[in-house]
Amino acid sequence: MSILVVGSVAFDDVTSPSGSVKNILGGAATYFSLAASYFTQVRVVAVVGEDFGPEQENVFRQHNIDTRGIERAKGKTFRWGGSYTDNLNEAKTNFTDLNVFETFHPQIPKAYEDSEFLFLANIQPTLQANVRRNMSGVRLTGCDTMNFWIKDFREELLATIRDWDFLLINDGEARMLSGESNLRKAASAILDMGPHTLVIKRGEYGAMLFRRDAFFIVPGYLLDSVFDPTGAGDCFAGGFIGYLAGQGFDLEGGHIHRGDLSRAVIYGSVMGSFCCERFGVERFRTLKRAEIDARFEEFRKFTSF
Amino acid sequence: MSILVVGSVAFDDVTSPSGSVKNILGGAATYFSLAASYFTQVRVVAVVGEDFGPEQENVFRQHNIDTRGIERAKGKTFRWGGSYTDNLNEAKTNFTDLNVFETFHPQIPKAYEDSEFLFLANIQPTLQANVRRNMSGVRLTGCDTMNFWIKDFREELLATIRDWDFLLINDGEARMLSGESNLRKAASAILDMGPHTLVIKRGEYGAMLFRRDAFFIVPGYLLDSVFDPTGAGDCFAGGFIGYLAGQGFDLEGGHIHRGDLSRAVIYGSVMGSFCCERFGVERFRTLKRAEIDARFEEFRKFTSF
Repeated sequence: MSILVVGSVAFDDVTSPSGSVKNILGGAATYFSLAASYFTQVRVVAVVGEDFGPEQENVFRQHNIDTRGIERAKGKTFRWGGSYTDNLNEAKTNFTDLNVFETFHPQIPKAYEDSEFLFLANIQPTLQANVRRNMSGVRLTGCDTMNFWIKDFREELLATIRDWDFLLINDGEARMLSGESNLRKAASAILDMGPHTLVIKRGEYGAMLFRRDAFFIVPGYLLDSVFDPTGAGDCFAGGFIGYLAGQGFDLEGGHIHRGDLSRAVIYGSVMGSFCCERFGVERFRTLKRAEIDARFEEFRKFTSF
Repeated sequence: MSILVVGSVAFDDVTSPSGSVKNILGGAATYFSLAASYFTQVRVVAVVGEDFGPEQENVFRQHNIDTRGIERAKGKTFRWGGSYTDNLNEAKTNFTDLNVFETFHPQIPKAYEDSEFLFLANIQPTLQANVRRNMSGVRLTGCDTMNFWIKDFREELLATIRDWDFLLINDGEARMLSGESNLRKAASAILDMGPHTLVIKRGEYGAMLFRRDAFFIVPGYLLDSVFDPTGAGDCFAGGFIGYLAGQGFDLEGGHIHRGDLSRAVIYGSVMGSFCCERFGVERFRTLKRAEIDARFEEFRKFTSF
């Protein structure tokens, strides 16, 4: 089944304890689609500027990602600069130049309208709502958001969140959205807002999945060295939604088995871990599906008792 | 098989988001022995003052813990005061009155000399070394330490650590001891110092076990509310060492199966989680072995995929 992802494509400057890079391809939609592309067909809706050329386009093409929904606008592509010190869980933002992203109004190509899965990456909640409304045929909607929208666009966000099936956010965002510091209580409050499934991403500490009737927790993968955690959360989402879409289970029945959801969390964790092994999207140039499945088995080995 | 634990017995003042308590029974040896008592015979070596009475003694007695090694000294028992804000992983120490603990020189009763397991809780490294030397018959030695000893008593600690089988410390201590911020590298460096098994405790994020040939990671148990995390790490150690001692496996063979070690980490996690449910040692007044095993099964349920 195919996934439509709507979000940012960007150029990033990143500094981490492993070094510094400038002008590398980034953005939530980029990371998401690369990770998901290992499992199923992915279509991207985003906006880029005149500085986005064949080199960047090829990164998507080499993963068979449909880029017809990437709009070319006059001006420059969204740019972000961030740095990490020893605490690799938290980026310090050095600059954010929205550029063409400032007036982004997602347009869905006709050819994308039959997408079964929709992933709305971290964009303004009313834009998320508009896309969701125009994609009435989708079977499952997964979304991300961030502190800025939770704090200053709360009403718009709460109005939109009602229609989402999956919400994937980090622990700080879950606490802010729910007003609860205890994650079990936070999860319960968020499930009351609409989504039937909440995934809380915890960086190096792993991830949790909550539904009304069950929860699942996995620790993070232990990397020998973390080059650059930028995009790891988006890659998690890509692995998670990608695996579910790739399974092609009976969506008519409306039921996803707990086992599939748990395995989706593991594939999300696997993709997030690979993302951190190089700067930017570099790791995806060589990553093979067999490596993904081998790391999935590693997870089984170091967590089973 | 029986365990001898050497460490502190204390009176604590604790403030957490759930309230405040004063003069409650605490100390690493107390928490350790209560947790371990659900699995095997435990013997304590500690020192207390004249303020330690039958009420405190009974807490140990009700768990069949052998208290003949608790020395009564003139003066007051060790006292500690700490508070937790929203970050329940970290206590702010308000005061430390060593009192009789300042001149503690552990004396091992003759009746304790046949103990098969030795747990040296967080005390001065040279005292740990002396006890270890006097207990030449023990089969397995587990130990804890803390930032203070790692930083200011490094040579004594490194000399002692060589003779330990298990080291159980938290992630911050592992980073400080090894000088490595990456936990995988930290673990490798610490295993080079002597212990064949390293357990890294991560508070709400769970725990990890490292040996040369394998590692195991478990996420933390999700409590509805954390009353008081004081002693959770000591209870973890009590559950971990207690389970291994209770198994009574073939120590002559010198080999502990990976499965036993992983299950010991789960029992450690279970005991740490119960500890947090009430202030001080309160939860152990009512805790039953059946509840412990039920929570062990819960761990299996929310981590398997």
